Amino acid sequence: MDPTQFETHPSRYRHWKLSLAGDTATLVMAVDGDHPHRAGYELKLNSYDLAVDIELAAAIQRLRFEHPEVKVVVITAELDRVFCSGANIYMLGQSSHSFKVNFCKFTNETRLYLEDASASSGLASLCACKGSTAGGGYELALACDEAMLVDDGNSAVSFPETPLLAVLPGTGGLTRLVDKRKVRRDRADVFCTTAEGIKGKRARDWGLVDHVVSRSKWDEAVAERARALAAKQTVVRGPAVALSELAPKITDRAITYRHVEIAIDPGARTANLVIQGPEAAPPAELGDPRGGPGLADVWALRAFRELDNALLRLRFDLPDIGVVTVRTSGDPELVVAHDEALAKSATGFAREVRLLQRRVLKRFDNTARSFYAVADRGDACFAGCLLELALGADRFYMRIDKDGAIAAATSAANEGFMTMSSGLSRLDARFYGDPDRAQKVLARGSEGPIPSEEAEELGIATIAADDIDFEDELRIAIEERASLSPDALTGMEQSLRFVGPETLETKIFGRLSAWQNWIFTRANSTGEHGALTLYGQPERPQFQWKRT
Amino acid sequence: MDPTQFETHPSRYRHWKLSLAGDTATLVMAVDGDHPHRAGYELKLNSYDLAVDIELAAAIQRLRFEHPEVKVVVITAELDRVFCSGANIYMLGQSSHSFKVNFCKFTNETRLYLEDASASSGLASLCACKGSTAGGGYELALACDEAMLVDDGNSAVSFPETPLLAVLPGTGGLTRLVDKRKVRRDRADVFCTTAEGIKGKRARDWGLVDHVVSRSKWDEAVAERARALAAKQTVVRGPAVALSELAPKITDRAITYRHVEIAIDPGARTANLVIQGPEAAPPAELGDPRGGPGLADVWALRAFRELDNALLRLRFDLPDIGVVTVRTSGDPELVVAHDEALAKSATGFAREVRLLQRRVLKRFDNTARSFYAVADRGDACFAGCLLELALGADRFYMRIDKDGAIAAATSAANEGFMTMSSGLSRLDARFYGDPDRAQKVLARGSEGPIPSEEAEELGIATIAADDIDFEDELRIAIEERASLSPDALTGMEQSLRFVGPETLETKIFGRLSAWQNWIFTRANSTGEHGALTLYGQPERPQFQWKRT
Repeated sequence: MDPTQFETHPSRYRHWKLSLAGDTATLVMAVDGDHPHRAGYELKLNSYDLAVDIELAAAIQRLRFEHPEVKVVVITAELDRVFCSGANIYMLGQSSHSFKVNFCKFTNETRLYLEDASASSGLASLCACKGSTAGGGYELALACDEAMLVDDGNSAVSFPETPLLAVLPGTGGLTRLVDKRKVRRDRADVFCTTAEGIKGKRARDWGLVDHVVSRSKWDEAVAERARALAAKQTVVRGPAVALSELAPKITDRAITYRHVEIAIDPGARTANLVIQGPEAAPPAELGDPRGGPGLADVWALRAFRELDNALLRLRFDLPDIGVVTVRTSGDPELVVAHDEALAKSATGFAREVRLLQRRVLKRFDNTARSFYAVADRGDACFAGCLLELALGADRFYMRIDKDGAIAAATSAANEGFMTMSSGLSRLDARFYGDPDRAQKVLARGSEGPIPSEEAEELGIATIAADDIDFEDELRIAIEERASLSPDALTGMEQSLRFVGPETLETKIFGRLSAWQNWIFTRANSTGEHGALTLYGQPERPQFQWKRT
Repeated sequence: MDPTQFETHPSRYRHWKLSLAGDTATLVMAVDGDHPHRAGYELKLNSYDLAVDIELAAAIQRLRFEHPEVKVVVITAELDRVFCSGANIYMLGQSSHSFKVNFCKFTNETRLYLEDASASSGLASLCACKGSTAGGGYELALACDEAMLVDDGNSAVSFPETPLLAVLPGTGGLTRLVDKRKVRRDRADVFCTTAEGIKGKRARDWGLVDHVVSRSKWDEAVAERARALAAKQTVVRGPAVALSELAPKITDRAITYRHVEIAIDPGARTANLVIQGPEAAPPAELGDPRGGPGLADVWALRAFRELDNALLRLRFDLPDIGVVTVRTSGDPELVVAHDEALAKSATGFAREVRLLQRRVLKRFDNTARSFYAVADRGDACFAGCLLELALGADRFYMRIDKDGAIAAATSAANEGFMTMSSGLSRLDARFYGDPDRAQKVLARGSEGPIPSEEAEELGIATIAADDIDFEDELRIAIEERASLSPDALTGMEQSLRFVGPETLETKIFGRLSAWQNWIFTRANSTGEHGALTLYGQPERPQFQWKRT
């Protein structure tokens, strides 16, 4: 296992330069071409790969927690005529299907987090594209609140993916064009098949960007728009809390954090993910607008950051693991106490922690592995925010014990804040079409822990079984699941997990990504004579013409 | 070209037996195993293929037009212990990717038409499953208003696709389970991975079927539920109109109907689809509840039935054709007159014609070809229901002529009835997020024809160009489009066409189908050692385990 470097620190950024001035942060994309994520390609012309995007995601996260005074982030570049040329094509061409799909998923999440920072945390974004803005570069601009393009007679925004590479703009671009920016669909069609893109006044008139500005007025216009965006923000964040290092211990059989561990069984292609609940009551600082030293390592933040990191490692570093049992351990009352303290706290920090939990839980929903939540020991701790894991899992197995110690517990975390991508809470998704049943669970939960048998009756547990049957039933279920085709399971889980309304977010993961995955497997893109394969070579792609 | 037999007649049904008794129709699935759609497999155990589904679709259509007295259709089978075992696996295993995808699309449309007949035409459906109901068989049941399963200790409903074949239930099953029937997602997960399915009381308790009934009470229960469903219907249909034969003339270069023609250029991989407008005013019978002999061949019905047939031939018989120009010819005022007469008529027949037009236009939206609508001659006739084709096309090219004869015209057909799968009208989808612009077009249209230049300003035309530029611009646009990868175009068009809200219908075509397409291309299903490939053989499939 050659673990991916997901953790970074501003002092170690290679590809981005972060500067701060009052309420404005500037993130300058300055990709270090010689330091790609994996050897084998050069990151020319501000093209990006996973390493570049990990830094971007980390920077946005740090701005939310560590720099509450920042109200707008300006994303720009320092190359002369290029803002960003998108995901690196050679990297894509060399990558396995599984990596490509997971890379796209991660970059999609990062862009959604930019939008979440604006929508939920009063951290707006302005993409200042002073040069050509292609593919994933333009998709980054689409994820910002405003996009500004230099009007120099040359710089264009473009989606060359379909005409040049026989793939799709895979980072939400197609969806955001028509659904978010409301570009007319026939114009979007012209734009997406015009490799050289669209520039100047037409780019603005078609709604592809918000502003086109000459070079001479550029800096002034960027500053003005940044000020205007900052002035609109009303959410108060803070106190500032520095994010501590996670530094998991990684071996061939386990990834171990302070509160989280994944134990791996490579032969069975299974893993056991365990999340430990808090060991103490929430610190008083959680409600204090001045903050305090205990906040950086407060359980609700630390445990979910660890879980987030573990999910990413599962996706990228453990591709063969098909089934993951999710267990919890600890004192349910303490989890509930942390949830309630966060929900009651009026500080921006507490809200940030809840928003982070919400994002991590969405990452969980969107991880293409079979998750079985398992409550089989007396110390099981599926309470509040950890109960969300059981509700988000494909199944929830509960052992019935005589003393009722194995139970589920609800808290403020289950009442609607922790929405899935669909906008539904996990309880509402579980009882889709019958919201009274979700309310019934919450009402029952407010009276105390819900033992296994009752949890099954209420519809929280998929299967509750007594001592005699439980182990066999679970073991067989895991073995059976691990024996099924991972491709079919991914498609099945995607269809069953995201019941109910569709949003821009579910469209990106459910529709756009599914088409892109399909296209990635087709000879026209990745075959021997495919366009992605042959990019940069003199040979022209040869297509199979059958339409499907 | 070996043309597909899309036209049939009750007197020629091979695979279904239709009987009528008062307000109840019974469709008995009795698949003739020796007459598959293509040679090479046998249709055992009421498994189906395209030929079987063409008859089903035709029967539902005929019930709507020819038997307005029918208020409920009972779908059942006459085999002893089997209702239906789903799409034939050997057929799928032998089919090209393109055929598989188009087969699934057609069967999905047929099932949506069953639901449409119930929702819009007062023709309810009851699936009476007196035996094992697997895969596509159960998906057919899910598309009915009610599903009844025999309780004989043996017969189950099941989705064996994922566990046995490494593919998905591809005819809306996953979506309908959770979104329509609201089966709890974790139970749906158990169900979809349990090859043998679920029977008896549990099938009802989980919401998989509405009724479980013993053999002894079966006939009585079916009759009772049919009566109850019929009693709920309040829509009055009729007068009855027999559907005439279309009998297109098919050559290597053209498919020609009375009002519709597709001319094919195999070398360029393009086609030109021309729809002729009506030659006369709508007949007076259109408003007469007693009907009349002119109705069977009334333009609005005949032309759209021909268009429907042409679209299916394009999908199945002309897979290499990538770009289709859509032209119209005739008198726009007559099209508008037909649209208005249909909209004003109080007869059920007139409503049925509009519903058919709506379904055909949805079929157009869902056809994976690039459509460029072209108005380049003085007799162009993009009016009312034919303007919908221009609004549904990927682009609309209009030539600017001096006398303004080339124009777009609106009618009652553009005002909201002809919804896309998303539930939006094509005008609202075009101006998504800005409904005032759609209203502006309708207001302007009510004053008379909208010449090309003005149509471009209003946002109806993608490109309006004068004589000098028009031909070159269009020619280059077609050549460029035809040179692009058909896979990427399919994914791109799917993402841009279906802007806005998602529905069960768009989920089925946009999400579920995209995942299924992807899975169909993966080695785990269709590779040498894939489960679909090896079905029925002693060898066990070998899977690649990487999760994506």
